[in-house]
Amino acid sequence: MINEKYKAMLSARSVIRELAEYAAARGEEIGYENVFDFSLGNPSVPVAEDYTKAVIDLHRNSDPVALHGYSPSLGNTEVRGIVADSLKRRFGLPYETKHIFMTSGAAGALAHALRAVTVPGDEVLVFAPFFSEYVPYINDTGAVLHMVGADEEHFQINWDALEREMNEKVMAVLINSPNNPSGVVYSEETLQRLSDFLRERQQEYGHDIFLISDEPYREIVFDGREVPYPSRYYDNTLSCYSFSKSLSLPGERIGYVAVQPKATDADIFAIMFGQISRGIGHNCPSSSVQQAVARVINETSDLSVYEENRNLLYDCLTGLGLSVEKPGGTFYIFPKAPGGDAVAFCNKAKDYDLILVPSDNFGVKGFFRMAYCLDTEKVKRSLPVLERFIRENDF
Amino acid sequence: MINEKYKAMLSARSVIRELAEYAAARGEEIGYENVFDFSLGNPSVPVAEDYTKAVIDLHRNSDPVALHGYSPSLGNTEVRGIVADSLKRRFGLPYETKHIFMTSGAAGALAHALRAVTVPGDEVLVFAPFFSEYVPYINDTGAVLHMVGADEEHFQINWDALEREMNEKVMAVLINSPNNPSGVVYSEETLQRLSDFLRERQQEYGHDIFLISDEPYREIVFDGREVPYPSRYYDNTLSCYSFSKSLSLPGERIGYVAVQPKATDADIFAIMFGQISRGIGHNCPSSSVQQAVARVINETSDLSVYEENRNLLYDCLTGLGLSVEKPGGTFYIFPKAPGGDAVAFCNKAKDYDLILVPSDNFGVKGFFRMAYCLDTEKVKRSLPVLERFIRENDF
Repeated sequence: MINEKYKAMLSARSVIRELAEYAAARGEEIGYENVFDFSLGNPSVPVAEDYTKAVIDLHRNSDPVALHGYSPSLGNTEVRGIVADSLKRRFGLPYETKHIFMTSGAAGALAHALRAVTVPGDEVLVFAPFFSEYVPYINDTGAVLHMVGADEEHFQINWDALEREMNEKVMAVLINSPNNPSGVVYSEETLQRLSDFLRERQQEYGHDIFLISDEPYREIVFDGREVPYPSRYYDNTLSCYSFSKSLSLPGERIGYVAVQPKATDADIFAIMFGQISRGIGHNCPSSSVQQAVARVINETSDLSVYEENRNLLYDCLTGLGLSVEKPGGTFYIFPKAPGGDAVAFCNKAKDYDLILVPSDNFGVKGFFRMAYCLDTEKVKRSLPVLERFIRENDF
Repeated sequence: MINEKYKAMLSARSVIRELAEYAAARGEEIGYENVFDFSLGNPSVPVAEDYTKAVIDLHRNSDPVALHGYSPSLGNTEVRGIVADSLKRRFGLPYETKHIFMTSGAAGALAHALRAVTVPGDEVLVFAPFFSEYVPYINDTGAVLHMVGADEEHFQINWDALEREMNEKVMAVLINSPNNPSGVVYSEETLQRLSDFLRERQQEYGHDIFLISDEPYREIVFDGREVPYPSRYYDNTLSCYSFSKSLSLPGERIGYVAVQPKATDADIFAIMFGQISRGIGHNCPSSSVQQAVARVINETSDLSVYEENRNLLYDCLTGLGLSVEKPGGTFYIFPKAPGGDAVAFCNKAKDYDLILVPSDNFGVKGFFRMAYCLDTEKVKRSLPVLERFIRENDF
């Protein structure tokens, strides 16, 4: 018989997807250039040219039976080695091939990491605001998502809320820095304090607590800074990466889990991930895509447009008197909704063809998210519209 | 903490993979050309040239942001339409876009199909001999695999065994024709009788029973025949396809589920699959691979080598007095092991550098599998070795 659980999920549509569909429909009506669609986090810059060259070269000059043959179940061994070397060089941790497991993007990485460190009934902590897809990612493992309320001032960590939610059943803590939706980067201080806290609790509870670090925005940082790398602060870290944003390849579904070399059972995690894959039908990302990204492992798309867009929007929003934490990375900004009711605010914005996402979707009330992965020209044209929207309404 | 379930699985290594590794190691020792490795079902012919052209053209001439952008969660809409049209033309069933869901190969297709029609505790019937990966595919959903004993004469269906195993808790029946490991194609008569049986039991139990049809070998058939298409015989059929074998693209992880248009809830299955994907971290096969296969939807690699190899091996084995059902397709043959102990027989074969897989791995005793996706030249060189092996030993 049909599984009623999945049937029931059909009515719970994604708010973001509904807004994007509204924007597309409205675009057909009045011309897409007149709709300021800040709903979707879809990269707007092209893939690095060297990636395209790599794909063409691989298809033109490799043995097709080898290029398209089954990858080993943990990923192409050479590719895993290239990823390990690159992480080692960059972050100074002794990664080896055995610590890397290739996945279908960050979604695949999280699916494996969560299953490896929890059993049904265990708890996983997430920090508001958080990417709403974490809910199905965690629920489907049988583990239970517990939300730690937001630090609404700076979107670092609300330590009181963390104290309240932490308990012996927590086996994993899921972080995302740079953060979707806030755009905030966790500071060294935040990571240090979180690591100290988790080490203490591991000691107290007598079991491992894994830090699952979702890092698809690792490469999109502003003001010339580097993102503090969570695996450097806490040994039991599983770093979940995707090339979706850094190389503008979201549709190619390519990423990895990098297991901190000092984590408990670091040497067998990747093999366990392989076993998990057999059950969830995942079985490796595309063999040719793996090989192509390995050839451009140290490159990114030209990501400078996102910083330019951030500057334009941040200056405009603060100039209009909105309260907003300055994003340190990503292509999101997360201002406080004037009037406090984010849903009403975003609904009203539709009258101006401004498509904004209310924060309720991310586990916190009273904010809205703008995804500025758009042409800068369009962001510039949106500024007077934003100004008109704010000035003409009494929130 | 580490999930002990997956940790425990580490010791249960795949027999086939171990044999393949043994063959590779032995190849390093004595030269790979001297090892007759019949262990792995990895296509040995190159992808169709038009596929390579399509990939190069797409990467050279499409907008990269569109080419590599997120696919809709059910798969690229245009690609789904092309698949539906192709199936409709070929099999005369009124497939539409809404009936097609793009997956990461047949493994992904089965993962979604099984979850959609079972809840934990339900039973799924499989027919021996069967592909051993069905065990983790089914176990991980929480459903229970029940094996129907083999028809050891012709590897169609053992109807008495089916009667014995069928009961009210069975929600899905999994078939695989052409079959791995036997190479046998289910006849029209078999499919008709199975369908009649399932319809009766649906009536009796008052619930749907879904036929999950695993069809990666649909295109590899011999003697100019067509494989009877299960969805034509039974409405509640989910057809699980992969391009791995037909186009020699196993590493690209590309396939689909096609929902029979008259199945219960046919219109919402694909949307349910999308919800299932969110939980298992699957989220679509590669966007560019989807588009490339759509351009060659009616092509296959040159598959004639497999028929030539089948003929050579079948003639040799029967000539040596072995009992073997003639394969109607795939690139497998499944003879009876002389002496009856397949494990001992395959172990002994290693002395001749013949790598054969004992049938115990496939849920039946006393047979062995040979995967003949090899150069015909190598198959020819293996024949005198096979002969020597059989003649020199007293089984």
